[in-house]
Amino acid sequence: MTDPATAALWPGERTEAARRLLLAAVDSFARRGYHATTTRDIATAAGMSPAALYIHYPSKAALLAEISRTGHRATLDLVERAEASSTDPVAQMRALAESFTTWHARGHTVGRIVNHELHALPEEDFAAVAELRIRIEETVLRIIAHGVAEGAFQVPDQRTAARAVTSLGIDVSRWYTERSSESPEELGRRYGQLVLRMLGAPAAAIEG
Amino acid sequence: MTDPATAALWPGERTEAARRLLLAAVDSFARRGYHATTTRDIATAAGMSPAALYIHYPSKAALLAEISRTGHRATLDLVERAEASSTDPVAQMRALAESFTTWHARGHTVGRIVNHELHALPEEDFAAVAELRIRIEETVLRIIAHGVAEGAFQVPDQRTAARAVTSLGIDVSRWYTERSSESPEELGRRYGQLVLRMLGAPAAAIEG
Repeated sequence: MTDPATAALWPGERTEAARRLLLAAVDSFARRGYHATTTRDIATAAGMSPAALYIHYPSKAALLAEISRTGHRATLDLVERAEASSTDPVAQMRALAESFTTWHARGHTVGRIVNHELHALPEEDFAAVAELRIRIEETVLRIIAHGVAEGAFQVPDQRTAARAVTSLGIDVSRWYTERSSESPEELGRRYGQLVLRMLGAPAAAIEG
Repeated sequence: MTDPATAALWPGERTEAARRLLLAAVDSFARRGYHATTTRDIATAAGMSPAALYIHYPSKAALLAEISRTGHRATLDLVERAEASSTDPVAQMRALAESFTTWHARGHTVGRIVNHELHALPEEDFAAVAELRIRIEETVLRIIAHGVAEGAFQVPDQRTAARAVTSLGIDVSRWYTERSSESPEELGRRYGQLVLRMLGAPAAAIEG
């Protein structure tokens, strides 16, 4: 059940037991929803006792917080890398839309949890994740403003456009499945073009 | 807690008790998620006994199915009305994107349930809703194909573009709240322009 992008979120830096619990939590939350999942469900799915779970995580909410923080951190990294990859706003935005879309297709299971269970986060964790979300949105907005200033984009309302760019990528995790006809990379490529068009980039730049 | 769009989904045609149960189910599913909600929660929120609930609905799943069917039926109606409103594909698509976006902003609570709890529907109800979803997508696709044939749109991959148009509108129900800075109608207007741009409509037609 674990998609490769989910597994890639927690590489060697954690103990094997913590990693197994995070993966079991993702699977359980995806299957039953956060509220209907018990710590016992997660422990069982990870092949542990509830007592063993509590050695690593004090609560179900702590697991959700870790999943949500790591997922948001990973997407913020993508977005910042896209901005750093070029000084040309068209190239920056193409890289951003492609990698953001591909991530949400490949990691659709964790993407759904990270984006749809925000309201279940404890207050402090919610604040930390909200901060990461703001940084993602501000990066998108900065690239748009840069493109408008250079005459590469035509955007009547930059904040709404930035919201639409992130929304389009995030929603991929709601509808994408392994049965979808395009690979995550192909979908990313097509969405990159749609986003550049939405921002009013000239056709010649989009094809490039 | 009930937003006006949710209340508008079930006008006078139902008994007052059925209507109260549907509204209570929407509020409960939105607050706790479908799986963690019990029929007792819904009955209590509607000011009834669980036994009184069963007179109207045999199960929690039957309530979800009715909410999902009505929500999808309402959005299919919007989309078909937009197509019927004009013979010009630019005008059709503008009307579609505007009304679809506005509906998902105004009815964000029911929109989230209808789009995020699909997997919880009993098989038969899922099939009925999937049929409505296909008809929505096919209407969007027909308008795009019509626009491409007339030279009003430039779209390299029509199916991906149709998916992006519906996805952008649906995802509004995930992030929109009454605290959002734009009204549902203003957001609809801006999204109408973004969608037309994404489909490669000429700037002069978009401003019109």
